[in-house]
Amino acid sequence: MAKIKHIGQQSVRFEEAPYIIGWGSIAGKKEGDGPLGSYIDQIETDSMMGKDNWEAAEGEFQKKVVKIALHRCGLNIGQIQYIVCGDLQSQLTGCVHGMMEFQRPMFGVYGACSTMGESMSLGAMMVNGGFANYVVAVTSSHTEVAERQFRYPVAYGSQKPLSATWTVTGSGAVILGQQPRGKGPWLKITGVTTGKMMDFGVQDSMNMGACMAPAAANVILAHFDDFDTSIDTYDKIVTGDLGTVGRDILFELTKTKKLDIQGKYMDCGIEIYNNEEQDVHAGGSGCGCSAVVLTSLLFRKLLSGEWKKILFIPTGALLSKISFNEGNTIPGIAHGVVIEREE
Amino acid sequence: MAKIKHIGQQSVRFEEAPYIIGWGSIAGKKEGDGPLGSYIDQIETDSMMGKDNWEAAEGEFQKKVVKIALHRCGLNIGQIQYIVCGDLQSQLTGCVHGMMEFQRPMFGVYGACSTMGESMSLGAMMVNGGFANYVVAVTSSHTEVAERQFRYPVAYGSQKPLSATWTVTGSGAVILGQQPRGKGPWLKITGVTTGKMMDFGVQDSMNMGACMAPAAANVILAHFDDFDTSIDTYDKIVTGDLGTVGRDILFELTKTKKLDIQGKYMDCGIEIYNNEEQDVHAGGSGCGCSAVVLTSLLFRKLLSGEWKKILFIPTGALLSKISFNEGNTIPGIAHGVVIEREE
Repeated sequence: MAKIKHIGQQSVRFEEAPYIIGWGSIAGKKEGDGPLGSYIDQIETDSMMGKDNWEAAEGEFQKKVVKIALHRCGLNIGQIQYIVCGDLQSQLTGCVHGMMEFQRPMFGVYGACSTMGESMSLGAMMVNGGFANYVVAVTSSHTEVAERQFRYPVAYGSQKPLSATWTVTGSGAVILGQQPRGKGPWLKITGVTTGKMMDFGVQDSMNMGACMAPAAANVILAHFDDFDTSIDTYDKIVTGDLGTVGRDILFELTKTKKLDIQGKYMDCGIEIYNNEEQDVHAGGSGCGCSAVVLTSLLFRKLLSGEWKKILFIPTGALLSKISFNEGNTIPGIAHGVVIEREE
Repeated sequence: MAKIKHIGQQSVRFEEAPYIIGWGSIAGKKEGDGPLGSYIDQIETDSMMGKDNWEAAEGEFQKKVVKIALHRCGLNIGQIQYIVCGDLQSQLTGCVHGMMEFQRPMFGVYGACSTMGESMSLGAMMVNGGFANYVVAVTSSHTEVAERQFRYPVAYGSQKPLSATWTVTGSGAVILGQQPRGKGPWLKITGVTTGKMMDFGVQDSMNMGACMAPAAANVILAHFDDFDTSIDTYDKIVTGDLGTVGRDILFELTKTKKLDIQGKYMDCGIEIYNNEEQDVHAGGSGCGCSAVVLTSLLFRKLLSGEWKKILFIPTGALLSKISFNEGNTIPGIAHGVVIEREE
């Protein structure tokens, strides 16, 4: 029988860690104008990407970013055994538009804005277990698509409270493989901590940070418990898109369990824009947000040697417009991935 | 490094096959009145399941069926390392309602009505790779939820053409484990063939069978190619919910590749209702359809010894209401799972 690699309550440790051999980031103009603009592989000034509608445009972001990731590691799409993909559109329509051309076996996944963590977790298991030589994990979001789907069409010009976030238009992809490629340093996934749905009763679709913070806290606390390790061995704890409001709640929740993460903390949603100048309220969000920040800023910090090990925790709010209108709460979920630099 | 278990273009062979140690089926009154009524573990006469709305009711079906599956193998939910779940609701709201109580690490997956094949494929990899001792794979659908989401609210009384199918109200769950439990015969998953999205340009949301048939054909043809085996070694080739219209297209498509599956063929969507008497037009559909038929009729045939080996291929039509209204086609996807009886 296979050796059990599951540890603790919610985690897997990869002793023969899958390598992140290729990656790519792509985003829209607003993200390009932000502080990470120069780190993102490709900035697209047309949010329609030459398509007839935003839903198809989101697919174009995914398609292009997968090509960037393939190019970076010198693979062609025919060498990829599985695509694990997701987006925020109902029925994963962004993936349907974006991945069709590739004609590869595909697993669609949904964890709201936590989806990059989910796709990388499953992809890492598939590579580590020998089910694939190469897996692509890709997610995206698109601000106009998300507004139309979850709130109001942007043409309505609805105002938002300051607790709301701005959905990132962009996509990030990683290619996982059993062996490193080229010369080092290399990046690898040494563990995952998979989230549970957490529901603290929040019903405010304009305050997703509050919906997601309990899920992030669950993953962070479970992670250090399962791996029986200290926060000192990590350079950064990076959440997906809690924004400024969710961040403060996360600090409170972890402090009640005697874990102080504040000194190591970063949130992709807070990093991607100049929040005040760019008028994005509590920060960026969407499953493109953590995917783009991971494949631009976070990988750069790891590859430069500034960081050696991070816990990357995309966070998702399981908002359904129908369920929300029926008066239900918005639970959160988060998925943690340990990424390490190898010399 | 892990031994590569991936074979051919789209498949994995499990030499140490994960066992299906627990399972459960639950469905609504219409399914109970159908030919499989006496095989389904539990029939619920109230499609609201005592809840305020259909979306939450669908979650109740999932929750109850997981409890049935746990009871069957004598496990408790705390022993389950991962739940891999999906449904047809946008943002997997059925799973959100149904799985919250269990508080287990969860991967949400979406492959439209093919989702039971996807959840079992990923669950089998997780168990075989040593990432879990026990995984639950569960999917559901609900006819009123699906009508409201994809077509028109049922209260409108819209008529449907004869190519349309009836979404099954019900849920099926399997529990996968590394070792068999109790005395035999046992059921195990010896391989999977993962589908690609296939788009033959169909734009008719009332003819999902035609959207899905090319995806089913792709998986079936790839399966026999990848495993280099003959259809003679299988007792049945069982698709998810092609219905009578999709079935005939599948026969045509496989025949052009010199594979005659007609003598071994079964479709869950054709089995679950008495199509003419129950006025369901082309048959049943929904990711609850294949899940319920698998965990009632198909497992019974395997356990009785009437069958020894089947290829189970849930089929999905990636219909998005937004994308459909934008004039796009409806691609299909299918996921194949080989289930064998062990004495």
